[in-house]
Amino acid sequence: MAENPAYDLAALKARLDGIALEDNPALMRQKSRDFYWYSPPLKRQLDEVSADLVVSPASEEEVRRVLEACFALAIPVTPRGAGTGNYGQAMPLAGGVVLDLSRLDKVLEISTGRVRAQTGAIIADIDNACRSSGQELRLHPSTYRSASIGGFIAGGSGGVGSITWGGLRDLGNIIGLRILTMEASPRILQLTGEDVQKVAHAYGTNGIILEVEMPLTPAFDWIQVIVGFDSFGEAAAYANALGEQDAILKKLVSVIAAPVPQRFFLRHRRYLPEGQHIVLAMIAPIAGAAFDSFTARWGGRVLFHSDRVGTEEAKSLPPLYELAWNHTTLRALRVEPSITYLQTLYPFPNQLALVERIHAEFGDEMPVHLEFVRFDGKITCFGLPLVRFTTEERLEAIIARHEAIGIPVFNPHRYTLEEGGMKQTDAVQLAFKREADPNGLLNPGKMIAWEHPDFAFESGKTYLFAGLAARPQALDHGTA
Amino acid sequence: MAENPAYDLAALKARLDGIALEDNPALMRQKSRDFYWYSPPLKRQLDEVSADLVVSPASEEEVRRVLEACFALAIPVTPRGAGTGNYGQAMPLAGGVVLDLSRLDKVLEISTGRVRAQTGAIIADIDNACRSSGQELRLHPSTYRSASIGGFIAGGSGGVGSITWGGLRDLGNIIGLRILTMEASPRILQLTGEDVQKVAHAYGTNGIILEVEMPLTPAFDWIQVIVGFDSFGEAAAYANALGEQDAILKKLVSVIAAPVPQRFFLRHRRYLPEGQHIVLAMIAPIAGAAFDSFTARWGGRVLFHSDRVGTEEAKSLPPLYELAWNHTTLRALRVEPSITYLQTLYPFPNQLALVERIHAEFGDEMPVHLEFVRFDGKITCFGLPLVRFTTEERLEAIIARHEAIGIPVFNPHRYTLEEGGMKQTDAVQLAFKREADPNGLLNPGKMIAWEHPDFAFESGKTYLFAGLAARPQALDHGTA
Repeated sequence: MAENPAYDLAALKARLDGIALEDNPALMRQKSRDFYWYSPPLKRQLDEVSADLVVSPASEEEVRRVLEACFALAIPVTPRGAGTGNYGQAMPLAGGVVLDLSRLDKVLEISTGRVRAQTGAIIADIDNACRSSGQELRLHPSTYRSASIGGFIAGGSGGVGSITWGGLRDLGNIIGLRILTMEASPRILQLTGEDVQKVAHAYGTNGIILEVEMPLTPAFDWIQVIVGFDSFGEAAAYANALGEQDAILKKLVSVIAAPVPQRFFLRHRRYLPEGQHIVLAMIAPIAGAAFDSFTARWGGRVLFHSDRVGTEEAKSLPPLYELAWNHTTLRALRVEPSITYLQTLYPFPNQLALVERIHAEFGDEMPVHLEFVRFDGKITCFGLPLVRFTTEERLEAIIARHEAIGIPVFNPHRYTLEEGGMKQTDAVQLAFKREADPNGLLNPGKMIAWEHPDFAFESGKTYLFAGLAARPQALDHGTA
Repeated sequence: MAENPAYDLAALKARLDGIALEDNPALMRQKSRDFYWYSPPLKRQLDEVSADLVVSPASEEEVRRVLEACFALAIPVTPRGAGTGNYGQAMPLAGGVVLDLSRLDKVLEISTGRVRAQTGAIIADIDNACRSSGQELRLHPSTYRSASIGGFIAGGSGGVGSITWGGLRDLGNIIGLRILTMEASPRILQLTGEDVQKVAHAYGTNGIILEVEMPLTPAFDWIQVIVGFDSFGEAAAYANALGEQDAILKKLVSVIAAPVPQRFFLRHRRYLPEGQHIVLAMIAPIAGAAFDSFTARWGGRVLFHSDRVGTEEAKSLPPLYELAWNHTTLRALRVEPSITYLQTLYPFPNQLALVERIHAEFGDEMPVHLEFVRFDGKITCFGLPLVRFTTEERLEAIIARHEAIGIPVFNPHRYTLEEGGMKQTDAVQLAFKREADPNGLLNPGKMIAWEHPDFAFESGKTYLFAGLAARPQALDHGTA
């Protein structure tokens, strides 16, 4: 116990007087989870993870008090937005405090091209607030209606909108972040320009995001279209070419191989004839006629068009972005619980050839799902294929096969930043953690570069956070 | 005279009673010209071109009456906007009527993402009208303050804004066109989707554009920046990479090799140290910090920044887009009248290597000027190099050299659609001319496919419009 002193929760609670706390074990467990269970390996590893206390500050000042207290008591703090991540980003591997930021949910300022909001604001709520100015956010995850903006920045990478704007990693997609450091006297820092990349997609390991400033783009009542093709290759080639239409403003271009849509998109089933490989598209109304001409040139079959179904029917269906990105996986999982998925990048300019190769090689074991995006100025696609899970060994073999033929995998079956990302130390994030979290109390176990500086990424071994196995017992569990 | 009956201008004037006409020879000559004199070969060929009558209708109904009358009398009609073209697009090679559309200048309707305007509306005036809705046009030529929207569509191809939106040829950059046919009873047609391409960039040879509907994008007070580099290659590579920054919203990325800026950009001279190769950029204010970070990464030297000079100073300088596109040539010509230019396309992905090769090969004879654009979904650049003109033979040799190493030339020293473009018949434009101008009265001599269907583009010979040499004498010149 000398190395892992139990957390002094009683002292913590005393210091946090007046701040909303939760220590009911069932509720704490709930607030310590995300969608990690998409992944069988993460489910095995993280199922028992729970906070020792959930703290829900209602103001910046309360956040500051929580950090100050936890720093003084050496209690880990794992920030959490709405818990819509997929890799345990906001799961407290070493226990301690889950810092629930959902009450910092105000939209603070809207002007031409930009919005400033508190970290816990729900993305759809931000868009609703911006609507009267004719503007909306550039990017959102498929969990638009539940995810928080701070969680998206800390744990997401892009999504709906990336076909036009690229990803969150791209300079300019986050204008500014206001953060709090984890020190004896927490400091507020304002980050702009490339400095935002110090804490964006760092899972909250090196600073607590308090406010975000994001670019806005014109709001449209986006046309939602499903286009069908007899062959998968045609669907992918059409989607790629649609992506390359610079003047057709769009927000989503997804390709989903048959029979996934027919089997899993239950609410849209009547629009999905057997055998059709589909493209989901969200198109600005000003480009409607151009899109129709383009689709006709390609011989695409318009299976669903939001402007051509009745209003009632349109309202009763989920929006198309809730068939795309990780919602494709979610819909499949609901029907067939053994399904999991991967996240891959098909590098330009070989994306179509590689996609065809993967499609042919894996067939029903791994139905192909593509999300087209702008990436470093070119159109290419991510793969979010469904995987019919058998064993972890087989999953690793599928990943290895991708990498062997030049398809990088952003592994969604790992809980660390590096293994889910570029498989190397992010020197900028690490340096900033030294500055903003010198005692390593923010979200422990997620940044290998901090926990285990000598870890050999090239070894092929999975990193195991020691704190996950041997985490301390709290002193006053369940006093509520 | 049997083959070329003189035009019966007296009969025409009688039919056009109540419509504004001009037949003063000097004024007609002025309204029959554009910036064709940028090109020594065009200056030689077109210097004597003049209309026999300039007609300035004030309404659609008056345009209809002009076409009906000219059709009945077999008098050619050449439509003209503001005369800011560079290839004689609106010059009446066979005489007849110049149809001055500048009085059809109303902005008719502004809504979310779109504007509808009459063909003669000045582009800057459209933007001014849209400003209160927070919107502006996606694309404009460097002649923004004088060019008409209809002329831009009929005779232009892109320009400022093409770094984000591609060119006018891209589906979606023109929403709709309302046109009038040249028939016994002129018909009004509404073109949308890909049908707009029937008359866009057809120099008015196959229909008179009455109204345009164009997409709008958010209006910004664009930051104008000049970035300097010691080496030309660095400047080009930085510009290319800036183009590929998907999240940095921009409107202009131009590269101009030293000593062009220092020698010809007289108003900005104090900002342009000797030897600096420059990049001109227009950046959305929301991307200001991202742009600064990006430029710092590349070691770019910020020579001018519109937010960092005094307001008076900023107001006294021409906007940066008036140093770019064809205004670069214009500024050079004013100082050194023997200069002309070329228009080339550096094809992706070899653009930077080809640019370096051209720069090294031609040196001072042809100082390099690049305009970066999105083209078929990728970032690449057009070349608008300055050429120190000696002989037409040498100019042809320079063009041939470009084509030999894989750099297509859109020859600005030709007055026909095909020779200035893809050097092949545009079957869509030709088919539409058969329908909309069955007697071939609209802007004769510009569409080779109509005038001389068997012309061998591959012969390397320049097409000569017979009507230019042997055009009929008008019957009542100068009666005003």
